Amino acid sequence: MKDYIKSPMEIEKKSFDIIGKEMGAHNFSDTELKIVKRVIHTTADFEYKDLIYIRERSIEKAIELLKSGVTIYTDTNMAASGINKNAIKRLNCSVECFVSREDVFKEAKEKGITRSMAAVEKACSEGVKFFVFGNAPTALFKLKELTLKGQASPEFIIGAPIGFVGAAESKIEIEKLNTPMITVRGRKGGSGVAAAIVNALMYIILR
Amino acid sequence: MKDYIKSPMEIEKKSFDIIGKEMGAHNFSDTELKIVKRVIHTTADFEYKDLIYIRERSIEKAIELLKSGVTIYTDTNMAASGINKNAIKRLNCSVECFVSREDVFKEAKEKGITRSMAAVEKACSEGVKFFVFGNAPTALFKLKELTLKGQASPEFIIGAPIGFVGAAESKIEIEKLNTPMITVRGRKGGSGVAAAIVNALMYIILR
Repeated sequence: MKDYIKSPMEIEKKSFDIIGKEMGAHNFSDTELKIVKRVIHTTADFEYKDLIYIRERSIEKAIELLKSGVTIYTDTNMAASGINKNAIKRLNCSVECFVSREDVFKEAKEKGITRSMAAVEKACSEGVKFFVFGNAPTALFKLKELTLKGQASPEFIIGAPIGFVGAAESKIEIEKLNTPMITVRGRKGGSGVAAAIVNALMYIILR
Repeated sequence: MKDYIKSPMEIEKKSFDIIGKEMGAHNFSDTELKIVKRVIHTTADFEYKDLIYIRERSIEKAIELLKSGVTIYTDTNMAASGINKNAIKRLNCSVECFVSREDVFKEAKEKGITRSMAAVEKACSEGVKFFVFGNAPTALFKLKELTLKGQASPEFIIGAPIGFVGAAESKIEIEKLNTPMITVRGRKGGSGVAAAIVNALMYIILR
């Protein structure tokens, strides 16, 4: 067996160099590129280059929120666990995934809706501003509904649900809001992708 | 906005139907297909159809271990959090991710190796049999080394590290062992994919 690179930072740097070489032509700014490359790093899938939509001034808004020690809502425990806890701590931010909460579980069962939908309702009622969706199209639909009704005030959204039923549509719908956002269009996305976007944003501040 | 499907089980069933229709010709058995479809369900990426390698009698071995209440080793907290905890509980299994352990952290720092490598050393010394890798090529290299030295006795391995440095090679190397295994060849894979394979195996028993 050949010897192999063992330093995590060295591995990451080499990976980003390879991605830069292989991804070819693009129109991303240097800051946007950091997000796109990190998603490709997380998925080994260059198609994300064509799927990531970064709305104007959204990175700036996300950074402003992260610097203010915002609470980050995630739709799954998996997305929450993919977010770098050390970076969160350094920024005095916090990550909350409501789907595991007892009250959310009960409400979902009573109403016959997904736990993700009940969770987003709860988060909105508690004034969450920074939303991260990697899994649940239904949660994204719900956030749009609540925002249009004036019952939610999102200031930044990562919309990256994955899947075959409702995922692509959920991203089309959420983009109709004027909120600053980053989305992954089409069927692709996922908890890992959503977490990678959060990490990329934090590293823009911290590194 | 159109009405949308809200029942999680209904969403999953419809997704699997779409995947079945779109994935085209294949040589998978019915049981293998359950694993492949779940990975595509998790990634929205049909390329996995051509990347997943299921060694003969490996599903049977995995099922035997799961039925015996095995401890499942994962290389990341993210993979651990993607594994269905309810199914784990029903099977009397447990999931352990060693990378967060204090002793593992110390050892990695002292030796200048990745925490993933130190974690796999610890797991092997504690007799773990069922290994799940979604992230760390270095951990997979290390497991192969330890197995060849007689210091590890894996009975089933999921080898799905993702990435640009070492990931593809790590899967080529691990396949040289005779151990029952499921791997994702090439650069792709990831924590979500690794967890999806574990879930698919558990659902074969439980559903």
